[in-house]
Amino acid sequence: MTPLGGLGDVGRNSATFEVNGEILMVDCGVLFPDETHPGVDLILPGLHLVNDRLDDMVALVLTHGHEDHIGAVPYLLRRRPDIPVLGSKLTLAFVREKLKEHRIRNTDLREVEEGSRTRIGGFDLEFIAVNHSIPDALAVHIRTAGGSVLHTGDFKMDQLPLDGRITDLRAFAKVGEEGLDLFMVDSTNAETPGFTTLEKDIQPAMERVFAHAKGKLIVACFASHVHRVQQVMDEAVKAGRKVVYVGRSMVRNMTLAAQLGYLDVPGNTLIALDDIDKYADHEVVIISTGSQGEPLSALSRIANHEHPIIRAGHGDTVLLASSLIPGNENSVYRVINGLTKNGVKVVHKGNALVHVSGHASAGELLYCYNIVRPRNVMPVHGEVRHLVANAELAIATGVPRENTVVVEDGAVVDLREGRVKVVGRLECGYIFVDGSTVDAVGDAELDERRILGEEGFISAIAVVNLHSGSLVEGPIITARGFVGAEGIFDDITAEVATALREALEEGADDTHQLQQVMRRRIGRWVSKRFRARPMIVPVVLAT
Amino acid sequence: MTPLGGLGDVGRNSATFEVNGEILMVDCGVLFPDETHPGVDLILPGLHLVNDRLDDMVALVLTHGHEDHIGAVPYLLRRRPDIPVLGSKLTLAFVREKLKEHRIRNTDLREVEEGSRTRIGGFDLEFIAVNHSIPDALAVHIRTAGGSVLHTGDFKMDQLPLDGRITDLRAFAKVGEEGLDLFMVDSTNAETPGFTTLEKDIQPAMERVFAHAKGKLIVACFASHVHRVQQVMDEAVKAGRKVVYVGRSMVRNMTLAAQLGYLDVPGNTLIALDDIDKYADHEVVIISTGSQGEPLSALSRIANHEHPIIRAGHGDTVLLASSLIPGNENSVYRVINGLTKNGVKVVHKGNALVHVSGHASAGELLYCYNIVRPRNVMPVHGEVRHLVANAELAIATGVPRENTVVVEDGAVVDLREGRVKVVGRLECGYIFVDGSTVDAVGDAELDERRILGEEGFISAIAVVNLHSGSLVEGPIITARGFVGAEGIFDDITAEVATALREALEEGADDTHQLQQVMRRRIGRWVSKRFRARPMIVPVVLAT
Repeated sequence: MTPLGGLGDVGRNSATFEVNGEILMVDCGVLFPDETHPGVDLILPGLHLVNDRLDDMVALVLTHGHEDHIGAVPYLLRRRPDIPVLGSKLTLAFVREKLKEHRIRNTDLREVEEGSRTRIGGFDLEFIAVNHSIPDALAVHIRTAGGSVLHTGDFKMDQLPLDGRITDLRAFAKVGEEGLDLFMVDSTNAETPGFTTLEKDIQPAMERVFAHAKGKLIVACFASHVHRVQQVMDEAVKAGRKVVYVGRSMVRNMTLAAQLGYLDVPGNTLIALDDIDKYADHEVVIISTGSQGEPLSALSRIANHEHPIIRAGHGDTVLLASSLIPGNENSVYRVINGLTKNGVKVVHKGNALVHVSGHASAGELLYCYNIVRPRNVMPVHGEVRHLVANAELAIATGVPRENTVVVEDGAVVDLREGRVKVVGRLECGYIFVDGSTVDAVGDAELDERRILGEEGFISAIAVVNLHSGSLVEGPIITARGFVGAEGIFDDITAEVATALREALEEGADDTHQLQQVMRRRIGRWVSKRFRARPMIVPVVLAT
Repeated sequence: MTPLGGLGDVGRNSATFEVNGEILMVDCGVLFPDETHPGVDLILPGLHLVNDRLDDMVALVLTHGHEDHIGAVPYLLRRRPDIPVLGSKLTLAFVREKLKEHRIRNTDLREVEEGSRTRIGGFDLEFIAVNHSIPDALAVHIRTAGGSVLHTGDFKMDQLPLDGRITDLRAFAKVGEEGLDLFMVDSTNAETPGFTTLEKDIQPAMERVFAHAKGKLIVACFASHVHRVQQVMDEAVKAGRKVVYVGRSMVRNMTLAAQLGYLDVPGNTLIALDDIDKYADHEVVIISTGSQGEPLSALSRIANHEHPIIRAGHGDTVLLASSLIPGNENSVYRVINGLTKNGVKVVHKGNALVHVSGHASAGELLYCYNIVRPRNVMPVHGEVRHLVANAELAIATGVPRENTVVVEDGAVVDLREGRVKVVGRLECGYIFVDGSTVDAVGDAELDERRILGEEGFISAIAVVNLHSGSLVEGPIITARGFVGAEGIFDDITAEVATALREALEEGADDTHQLQQVMRRRIGRWVSKRFRARPMIVPVVLAT
């Protein structure tokens, strides 16, 4: 068993299981880059580790439809489109859209549901309903000749969920009675004490927002959070407001969810954005993307007065019914400040109970460990701090410390005679998607971007004649992202010219050597004069 | 009255007051840059607005010694060192060190204390003790011919502070009885309901940490938080541990604080870092900087196993007794994960009560408004969302809405016959300190850095002979921070060469025109092939 992602980061969840030469993968998600990955669009799990083994892959199981679990599926299937992909109806619907965008055909998507059991190769798979912040999430019980594994996927244990579909603890109990070798458990909220608040407990705050909103009302939330949208929809119906979706992913996902029966949209509730002007402000609620302050999202554009259709100002209300993902604080507060400045009243998780997490907190995890009583535990889905906290919970319920494995992506974990053991470690680095390239931009390029982004660069170009030993043209010294004052390079240009001439007179006979002369001169000067370390890019052309 | 900073941002607090041609400044702090200011070291308040008026400045009053209130003092005084600077003993001690580092001499620092009253020009200044997360903080009551102002500085109302020095509400009451025209009030925590927890309420959590720490114990906190350090010191003495300061600012500030009597260091408690090896792990507590995950700080280096002296691993404990400033989450969690991975137990505000804020929450602000009953209110120190929340608190206590002014930096606010009015707005942009330059890097350079940092650049160099209309050398196409694959530019190089030759044949006779040819060709190619938009830097040299 080797995790290809999600152990050490929150995102790019993926794990492979190998029995007798056959490989099963569970989830294949993306990680969203942070400030240490400038310019990167997505980060993939360590798919290079299975590149040579694609023919041995008997199936990909998807636990649910969030991007951090399905986002990298196209990058796997474009190498072998017919790998059987197993998932619930909604999950596969989201995957299908994604594959269409990537123009991947001849795929083999197989719908499964809770309670169903199927065998693929040496893997006997049984699916168990779990509750999460997207409908139709599944845990998977994997029975093999080598032992049994229960993988929770992402889950929480809301006991009164909107759709009545609770995490099936009776099934967990049966797994436990049968005897479980390895329990792989969502760690996201393992550091959070107590129990995750019920989804429906945000209703009072939502009712208050609807009751007090006299003008426009805009609700921003994740575009996959069907139940959150359902709550907004229900309040809208009660308040006699029409609903408008704004944002490409919101429109696409909610249309799918309604078609498949996961979202109940009463007739005549939905209107198109183009028709919004036919209604008064208080007759509409806008459900929008952009809850994380994404600069190009509808909500950010509304906050900056840049949206082509929607304006918001005095008397209007914006509800951010969403979490605040670490790293996004500044962007989100920028949106809140922009809206506040325009006179909009902003309700968010900082000032009202308008969001609850989708993951089980410590108290819920304890229930799971006590119900399943696994022989071995491997925390998944989280940064190291989460994984360690989750392992401690397992240990507190009686799982022996030596039977809990806290490992990171790339670890090779063996299950033999009911005992897990870390037997190796593969290099499971980041694969960056940047524009249309995959794995073409790496750490070296990111290091360059960091220097360029912090300090800019100075370019110096000279043309020399190596035969005559003379400086033909230049040096021309210019800069970008660096101090922009007129004439700042005048002195150093003369100095570098002299240095080049001296080097040529002393017999310098290759351009590389002369480039080093320019680099050193400029580097010293800029460091002394500006206490700065821009990238220096010297080019010497020989004619 | 014009705020030069701190209204719209958390930081670079500064405000000017003008009466009969004389100017008084209150505070002169820096703002720490965020991800929208790549490479910038510090952001100064709008000091350019007083550049021509330095001779009219009768005094600079400093409310306390935090960087966001004193950090820009050298940048003001280097233009006129003898502006009288008024502040409390500790505040001026910190300023003195700062001026020494900047080699600014012939200054005029004047110590004041709570209860004292002094007249400078047309300003009658009275200082009032306030409690904050640094000792010796002052509010200032300014009486002028134009009216009276009470500026709180930063404050909270801890009723049982460690040093017994509470915010002097009796003095606030007297100001109110005398009649106050304008109340300028710290807004930082105006959105936070209730009351800020007492500083001493973190003692139980700290005792627990000391009781359970069997190995090394490292406590990280702000280098100016004398009372927090005092609490650690007291626990260290009880636990029989020696104390070591780590981090330049921690050593400097705590040495000053002890010398001036703000920090009580029992004899033989302190040891030097170099002597740490003479003690067993459990005999020492290290008080360190780096609580915000700053990459070069001692704590980050310890987490990365890069510290020259201190190692931390299994059995050791790190206590982050500090806030988590928005925007720093990823850095702080990186440090926590690094330490956790090494087996260190990390206690932080996410899992224990080990930090309380230094600012008054909504409940405390209501007390202030009710005690002072000001005619007009102007919230200061905060983002727009904080300023608006603070204004609403004032209004809730009965201040008429039309007498509360929510403005941002650069607003010109007039106080006439007991009524405030916004009469204008000056351009109060950011002044960036970058390396040794001040205001040399501006928005244009930052825009370039953002592109370079996200996408890198492609440089194309060619040498042409305009007389003969021929391409002499090149084009040489190279890139940095962009897809690094060998030979990727081969095709486009040939294509650009052809385009240049064609342009020359068609009579192109200036280098600018040829540069445009290169830029367009490469831009189209890179956008189509890589869906990327790196900066394109074409240079054509004519021989």
